[in-house]
Amino acid sequence: MMKSVRFWLYFGCPYQTGAMKTKNTILSLLRRQNLTVNELADRLGVTRNAIIIPLKQLEADGLVDGKSRRGSGAGKPPTEFGAVAGTEDSDSGAYKPFLQKVINTLPSYLERHEIEKLMGEIGSSLAQEVKTDTSDSFEARLDAALQFLDGIGAGTSKEETETHITIRSYSCPLGRAVREDPCVCSAMERFFADVTGGDVREECKRDGRLLCQFIITPKD
Amino acid sequence: MMKSVRFWLYFGCPYQTGAMKTKNTILSLLRRQNLTVNELADRLGVTRNAIIIPLKQLEADGLVDGKSRRGSGAGKPPTEFGAVAGTEDSDSGAYKPFLQKVINTLPSYLERHEIEKLMGEIGSSLAQEVKTDTSDSFEARLDAALQFLDGIGAGTSKEETETHITIRSYSCPLGRAVREDPCVCSAMERFFADVTGGDVREECKRDGRLLCQFIITPKD
Repeated sequence: MMKSVRFWLYFGCPYQTGAMKTKNTILSLLRRQNLTVNELADRLGVTRNAIIIPLKQLEADGLVDGKSRRGSGAGKPPTEFGAVAGTEDSDSGAYKPFLQKVINTLPSYLERHEIEKLMGEIGSSLAQEVKTDTSDSFEARLDAALQFLDGIGAGTSKEETETHITIRSYSCPLGRAVREDPCVCSAMERFFADVTGGDVREECKRDGRLLCQFIITPKD
Repeated sequence: MMKSVRFWLYFGCPYQTGAMKTKNTILSLLRRQNLTVNELADRLGVTRNAIIIPLKQLEADGLVDGKSRRGSGAGKPPTEFGAVAGTEDSDSGAYKPFLQKVINTLPSYLERHEIEKLMGEIGSSLAQEVKTDTSDSFEARLDAALQFLDGIGAGTSKEETETHITIRSYSCPLGRAVREDPCVCSAMERFFADVTGGDVREECKRDGRLLCQFIITPKD
C-alpha cells in the first residue's frame, strides 16, 4: 500500500492521493463500528458523494460490506457498512518478519528431520488449495500449480525438454525465509509433487541472486 | 501491488498504468541479469528516456541498484543495473498463507507449552528490532513499540488511565494467523513486555470483529 502512495506522490496526482486517504479513513472507522453513508459523511465532514466512490471501492476489494440496520424503528431500515471480518490484516507487513522469526526459532525445538517433515506437510496443505481435478492431465495440473504461485507473486517460467520440465522463478515469493533456511524450498518441492503427481527435485540457487528451480519428471 | 493497479484502472489514469507496467517489466528483466539503460531500452523497444524514470523509482524503492560494468575494455565503464539481492519477494503474497499453514501444523509437532515458549521467543526477537535505548523512559519505549507496529500495518491506539495503559488495534497485522491460533497474541504480549519493561496482559477479542488489546502496567 505504501509503495503505491509513494508512486502517486512521485507523479503528483493529488486527486488519487486524496481519494486514497479518504478510503483509508473510511476503512479505519468501519473497523471500529458499523456506519451509514450519512454517518460517515458527518464524521469526515464531507458530502455523501465524497463517500460513495471510495466506499464502493472498498466493497469491490471485499474489505467492507453493507447490511440493513436492525431495530431502527418504522420504515425502510438504512444500510450500514462495516469492515468484513477476516480482513483486518489487509495492509499487513507483519507476516514476513513473523514467519522469518518462526523459521529461525524452530531449530531450537525440532530436529532437522522433523522440520523437513513439517515443511512437507505445509507443502501438501498448500497443494490442496490448488484447484485441480483427478481427471486433469499432468500438464493441466502443472499449469494450475504455476497459476497459483504466480498469484502469490512468484513470476514463474517453464522450460520443457523431452524427459522433464524445469520451473524457474527469479522472484521467489518466500525469498527472505528461504535465505534464512532452505527448508522452505522442500515445502515447495512437496507442493509440486502433490499437485502434479510427478517426481520433483529442488535445485534452487540461494547465494547472491536467488533462483527457484524445480525439475519435474512426469510419472508414466 | 495488485490493489493499486486496480485502483488506477478504476480511475482510468493510463499514464500511471503504463509506467507501472514498464516498472514491473524492468524489474523482472533485472532479476535475471544486470543490464545498462541502453540494453533495457533495446529489450523493451522504447527510448532511453522511457526507462530512466521507472528505473530511478526502482532505485528509490531499494529494489534495484547500479554499478560499473567490469571488464568492458578501455574508457569509462558503463553503469549496469541489477535487482538487489534479498528483494525477490517484494510483491509476495505468500507469507500469509505459509505462516498460517505453519501455525496450523505446529500442534502435531510440539506440545502446547512448547508452542507458547516458541511464541515468547519470537516476540522477544521482534522486540529486538525496535530501536530503544536503556536510558529511554517507559513512555518513550512504548511509543517506539507502537511506531514499529504501525509500520507493519497495525494502526494502534493508546488509552491511558492512572494505573495502566491500554493498547488497541482494529487492524491486527497478523489477523489471519490469530484466527487460526491465538498463540500469536502471546508472541505480541512478550513483545510489549520486552520493549517496555512493563507487565503486559493480552485481552484480544477474537470472535467476529477482531480487536487486539494489551493492558500494560509500568513497573515501579
